[in-house]
Amino acid sequence: MDEFSLINCLKQPASVRDDVILGIGDDAACLEIPAGFQLLVSTDTLVAGVHFIDDLAPSDIAYRAVMTNVSDIAAMGGVPSWITLALTLPESNNAWVTCFSEGLHQALKLFNIALVGGDTTRGPLAITITIHGLIPKNTAVKRKGALPGDEIWVSGYVGTAAAALACLQVKTLPALPAIFREKLWRPFPRIDLAELLRTHASSAIDISDGLTADLQHICDASQVGACLNLTAIPLHPLVLSYFPDKALEFALQGGDDYELCFTAAPTAEIYFLNAKCVKIGVVEEALGLRSWDKDHGQMPLVSSGYKHF
Amino acid sequence: MDEFSLINCLKQPASVRDDVILGIGDDAACLEIPAGFQLLVSTDTLVAGVHFIDDLAPSDIAYRAVMTNVSDIAAMGGVPSWITLALTLPESNNAWVTCFSEGLHQALKLFNIALVGGDTTRGPLAITITIHGLIPKNTAVKRKGALPGDEIWVSGYVGTAAAALACLQVKTLPALPAIFREKLWRPFPRIDLAELLRTHASSAIDISDGLTADLQHICDASQVGACLNLTAIPLHPLVLSYFPDKALEFALQGGDDYELCFTAAPTAEIYFLNAKCVKIGVVEEALGLRSWDKDHGQMPLVSSGYKHF
Repeated sequence: MDEFSLINCLKQPASVRDDVILGIGDDAACLEIPAGFQLLVSTDTLVAGVHFIDDLAPSDIAYRAVMTNVSDIAAMGGVPSWITLALTLPESNNAWVTCFSEGLHQALKLFNIALVGGDTTRGPLAITITIHGLIPKNTAVKRKGALPGDEIWVSGYVGTAAAALACLQVKTLPALPAIFREKLWRPFPRIDLAELLRTHASSAIDISDGLTADLQHICDASQVGACLNLTAIPLHPLVLSYFPDKALEFALQGGDDYELCFTAAPTAEIYFLNAKCVKIGVVEEALGLRSWDKDHGQMPLVSSGYKHF
Repeated sequence: MDEFSLINCLKQPASVRDDVILGIGDDAACLEIPAGFQLLVSTDTLVAGVHFIDDLAPSDIAYRAVMTNVSDIAAMGGVPSWITLALTLPESNNAWVTCFSEGLHQALKLFNIALVGGDTTRGPLAITITIHGLIPKNTAVKRKGALPGDEIWVSGYVGTAAAALACLQVKTLPALPAIFREKLWRPFPRIDLAELLRTHASSAIDISDGLTADLQHICDASQVGACLNLTAIPLHPLVLSYFPDKALEFALQGGDDYELCFTAAPTAEIYFLNAKCVKIGVVEEALGLRSWDKDHGQMPLVSSGYKHF
């Protein structure tokens, strides 16, 4: 497969958005931003052997690469619009590229995202996606903005991806349960919450490094502390049944869930309850992360997450 | 150096643009597009051992990575505004990152570009930059648009980077002449021509793959052919003195010059002559590339350029 065929295979089968004035095939894409909107941009790299196991299906690699990026746009309260893809491949393998393209196009279609450009190079397998999103002017939800008294929310189960990874690593399971596999390789970012977040959240972040590590990012940016009610943290029943002693640890320390953690004034409770989000704690003036339960009262919580170096 | 220090080192010392509503440090950057403008986006990856030699100074790697991207914006007639940087590093080396940052910030400063986000990951050395540029609505200069009768121009010497590479490969030179070194590792993209191109050019491309290969891209997109006057192609005197027999081949086939090749109606001649561009041929209806000289008349020209796979 030469470079031309490779690019042709990666191209989306049909043009999907009329705000793409010029897509793949020129020196740069040309894109239209609607009046009253600002542009969101985020970049994520997935490296073989670091971010995914070597025998993962290429379609899953592509799907996950798109979704981890979409999650960053979700965390801002935005809606994804376009991506560029930088694909570094050790060799040009027809079957691999075809399978990769399938997962790529499937993920893009789910959120009506256009692939508008990229670069294909030879080298150790790595995928860098730069995603673009649109958001009404001055409504971006930042990490900064949490106020003492705000409530802390998560958008769904946390720790599921970490449990899935643990299953893969111990290799005692004949097959990974579907829900684990889905969560790990087919995360579904919470773009559905974008409007609610823009309207009611005081801060937000996507949980990619782990709940405590990412909540700490909110606290650092907002110059506040947080107290979590550990019994409120939503743990998937299957994680509890596979790992009764580790489920909470997975939830607090494990990354890659691509759910959102956010804060909002208590008056917003009804909106987020209706959206099936779960209240897990409260923002406090005193810096640091703490947990609270009825037996122990307040205890310090250590934040740690995935470190790249 | 941990990830936090790494990111801090890569950050620009001062915020440079007031259209950056939110820069590095959140899930996504938030950017303002001025009314009446469209967004240009392009991505380029540099892989160690493929796009640069292993012992190249990290500052040169960074500088070149920015400039190859800026050149894509120049070819559209745009002005660069922001980049994201995805940096994959085998290990976290303080001195390397400091030197890389120096070249990065120097290149960004030259064109008033803000680094607004990125990702740092562990793996084989690779740099992916996604560049953003701004252009007045519906003025982007495409590859498509060349018309029979248009004149073909280049913005400066071609073949210099190929000559520099040849010097490096034969290793017979005690030191690479400064002009070669500059052209190869410190290319200076032709943003200065942006307004002229938008106003007068019918098509444009940056010469990264080689003059004939890139001119062929214009011809393919525009459904036209081209005839070049080989004696008009501007060759650097030093290239001619080092490689008298190969200078023209370098100019036609060698890549990495990051000059622009463009077409314009004959009425625009005066503007491009004033900008020291050089007229090298004419667009014709008959497909294919041809050369012309007074001794041989018209001869077919083979287009070939760098192939990644």
